[in-house]
Amino acid sequence: MMHVLDDEELIPSAMVYPGNTEEVQQVVIWANKYSIPIFPISMGRNFGYGGAAPRVRGSVLVDLGKRMNKILDINPDDYTCLVEPGVSFFALHDEVKRRGYDHLWIDPPDVGGGSVIGNTVDRGVGYTPYGDHWAVHSGLEVVLPTGEVIRTGMGALPGNNTWQTFPYGFGPYSDGIFSQSNYGIVTKMGMALMPNPGGYESFMYTFPNEEDLAQLIEIIRPLRIGNILENVAQLRHVIQSIAVLGNPRSKYYTGEGAIPIEIIHEAASDTPVGDHTWVYFGMSYGPPHIRKYKLDIIDAEFKKVAGARRIDPATLPPDEYFWTRDRIASGTPDLHELRWVQWVPNGSHIAFSPVSPIRGTDAAKLIELARRRHDEFGIDLLPAFIVGLREMHLIVEIVFDKTDPARRKAALDCLRAMIDDAAACGYGEYRTHLVLMDQIAGTYSWNDGALMKFNEKLKDALDPNGILAPGRCGIWPRQYRGRGWEMRRESGENSQGNGVAPD
Amino acid sequence: MMHVLDDEELIPSAMVYPGNTEEVQQVVIWANKYSIPIFPISMGRNFGYGGAAPRVRGSVLVDLGKRMNKILDINPDDYTCLVEPGVSFFALHDEVKRRGYDHLWIDPPDVGGGSVIGNTVDRGVGYTPYGDHWAVHSGLEVVLPTGEVIRTGMGALPGNNTWQTFPYGFGPYSDGIFSQSNYGIVTKMGMALMPNPGGYESFMYTFPNEEDLAQLIEIIRPLRIGNILENVAQLRHVIQSIAVLGNPRSKYYTGEGAIPIEIIHEAASDTPVGDHTWVYFGMSYGPPHIRKYKLDIIDAEFKKVAGARRIDPATLPPDEYFWTRDRIASGTPDLHELRWVQWVPNGSHIAFSPVSPIRGTDAAKLIELARRRHDEFGIDLLPAFIVGLREMHLIVEIVFDKTDPARRKAALDCLRAMIDDAAACGYGEYRTHLVLMDQIAGTYSWNDGALMKFNEKLKDALDPNGILAPGRCGIWPRQYRGRGWEMRRESGENSQGNGVAPD
Repeated sequence: MMHVLDDEELIPSAMVYPGNTEEVQQVVIWANKYSIPIFPISMGRNFGYGGAAPRVRGSVLVDLGKRMNKILDINPDDYTCLVEPGVSFFALHDEVKRRGYDHLWIDPPDVGGGSVIGNTVDRGVGYTPYGDHWAVHSGLEVVLPTGEVIRTGMGALPGNNTWQTFPYGFGPYSDGIFSQSNYGIVTKMGMALMPNPGGYESFMYTFPNEEDLAQLIEIIRPLRIGNILENVAQLRHVIQSIAVLGNPRSKYYTGEGAIPIEIIHEAASDTPVGDHTWVYFGMSYGPPHIRKYKLDIIDAEFKKVAGARRIDPATLPPDEYFWTRDRIASGTPDLHELRWVQWVPNGSHIAFSPVSPIRGTDAAKLIELARRRHDEFGIDLLPAFIVGLREMHLIVEIVFDKTDPARRKAALDCLRAMIDDAAACGYGEYRTHLVLMDQIAGTYSWNDGALMKFNEKLKDALDPNGILAPGRCGIWPRQYRGRGWEMRRESGENSQGNGVAPD
Repeated sequence: MMHVLDDEELIPSAMVYPGNTEEVQQVVIWANKYSIPIFPISMGRNFGYGGAAPRVRGSVLVDLGKRMNKILDINPDDYTCLVEPGVSFFALHDEVKRRGYDHLWIDPPDVGGGSVIGNTVDRGVGYTPYGDHWAVHSGLEVVLPTGEVIRTGMGALPGNNTWQTFPYGFGPYSDGIFSQSNYGIVTKMGMALMPNPGGYESFMYTFPNEEDLAQLIEIIRPLRIGNILENVAQLRHVIQSIAVLGNPRSKYYTGEGAIPIEIIHEAASDTPVGDHTWVYFGMSYGPPHIRKYKLDIIDAEFKKVAGARRIDPATLPPDEYFWTRDRIASGTPDLHELRWVQWVPNGSHIAFSPVSPIRGTDAAKLIELARRRHDEFGIDLLPAFIVGLREMHLIVEIVFDKTDPARRKAALDCLRAMIDDAAACGYGEYRTHLVLMDQIAGTYSWNDGALMKFNEKLKDALDPNGILAPGRCGIWPRQYRGRGWEMRRESGENSQGNGVAPD
């Protein structure tokens, strides 16, 4: 669903399905022996960011998830689990339920079919108070690019019983360099499970005007940092409420350019959003009187925005998108979210996700920047703000017809332009699609690209033959550098890419 | 206060006081040029873990804190700060107050005079809900061992305004390898500040018997993971209540061997602890009715231990140790804690801090292990359990007369024995004194020492001349390895140590 390039780009030459850590080691040793690039995936979902595709054409795809899919442990006393790469959020959720552990919650992301490990090492997020997956993981087993196996944290202590309860261990805390990188293959990961909070209650507010955004973001910041808003806040534009209904945009509009806002408001008039523009989804946790304390504060603060409306969940039909958010924020995986890919025929999608402080001025600047480029390329702007704790991400999903080369190119050109615009204002992306990794890594250029030089130094030390996921997150092994492998202004066409790795 | 070796060991040959990052770079480049080992300290407190001493005798001490002591930013909207190595918890606290930011709290450790950066990169802890300092830091500036400067996370994006609000950035998250390591010198660090919770209330419980420990730990675990106990839990033995009064132990006992428990109970009889054995210090946060909800649960659960007593804070005099805990857990730095070094004349101290799950069986095992060795070496056992979130540390501070070689040796022998005993049961230390680093690093030996080999590979790549803090956390540069630099069974006497680094 993320075909932004021609079919021949980003294609593997073969796939392997290791069944255990030893087989992963064998694959790595073999790749070193024959100098073949390998590209590991957990389950390969990675929606919006490239899916299962390798960065270098002709790589051997190492599909870890297919056979390494065991839940190795769920500890009901410590509230932790230990999983292999093929364990999805659905599978983990179902197993917790099957064992009758009602006191344990998992934290699913927007779409629950992906790998827990894959999402976490890519630093994806979920929507309970345990939404920062990287922050709640504890302990990795990693196959290094030269074939050795390490266990991080307390996992390095033989006979320990704390691998999943204390993340740091002794000495350098190395887990972080195995996230968003190509320094190792994660074959096991521990993770904290959230205690059942003893009750929960979703809420939904709508706000009338585009311009309410800045005021609302200012209201959200202290509430979120103060944990009155307890989960990742979602502030979505009304157009998302329409797109997620799953109807094609042609039902509403068949003219040229981006869909006019009047048509969106017209389409929304018989939905719970009515004539409003912004929709907030959140959840409060705990027993009723504890929730009431927080919900009363939220209500008073949100209603400072003139015309703000609280939508009573009791008035919402069971198939309303609200209940998707309700399930996800209470630990039940769901798939509904992706319905907006039906917005165009043969729908494919690619995401723009710049990070900013939680400030009204930044929100307004980012929306303006995105809207200007979307208008330029005739693309519908589908914005949402995801408020972490002290930062927010604007998430813009560009949905395009993958069979139409012109629309593909427009999507990619629009994205590339937004990335540069954002970087010029000091905004950087937290995660990205394979084809944009070089460009985005290039924006993190402080002090003459010192961080990338440091990343390359680690790459050379850990992967001297440059076999592991060359180019992932913009990090290229020595033999690729300066030889035209980076995808920059040429809209994604590699000048190299003949399927053969350099010597 | 941590002189466990002779005066000539762990002594620097010179000290430098850089005034800014560029001067740190110059020192590093100079060290590379002349192959001189350098050992950076922030302020050099590091109580219980070696203070300001370098691991290799004759190193040049790089005292960052003396001149690099600026608070570069306190952001009252984002609830963050940016500091240099010489900023203490006291200085940060005072500056927050001076600016009138009553909505911001800092998180002090037991003793507030040390460096915020020093404590955090050593992965020290505090006692508010922001007690895991490493987890709440955001953004580092690091001088690498070859002299380059990097900024991590969003700091690598020129013109960014999110360095202190979003820790991860894009690509490998490398901060962790600069904690408890010798891979770089941290010259700036960002950190989250806690929002004033709108009220707080300390509480103190005592429990009658030694054997209550296991039951109590089982009660604490779900309350702590469920955030009903909101800050790092402290469970202290009555002997600590006596030692922290600041009197010499000779006031109570002048006989041979460890002080008998009857004498401790006798001494405690006119203190708030009375005839009880274990003391719990905690704090509840938020407005009164929110605190009441949590405190009622805690009271009901703690009173399941037969004879448990809640001590009413209103009955406690202003100089009671309780109020020290109260200040620290509400964000006010304090120095009272160290009074127990007066337990013996010329008091010095060194800590044993193994990590375990929060389980009664583990607590009982660790106490038994520590008591057996303390009895063997005739040392008073001063135990406390510090419950993080899913793990706890037993903290045992050995206090000894630093002018008495026999007592020094007993302290070190006792510690070395406990480390080995603990490792045999699967427990490892989270942090340690300079002279014990090799031994403890050696216990993290899974898969034929794979993690240390990995650490050494990083060391060789980042510090090819091996100049930065050789031996810190057991990581030795290539030219030191296998040449007798490690301190193991010889009770801390280096077979090398002539002040000259190897070629």
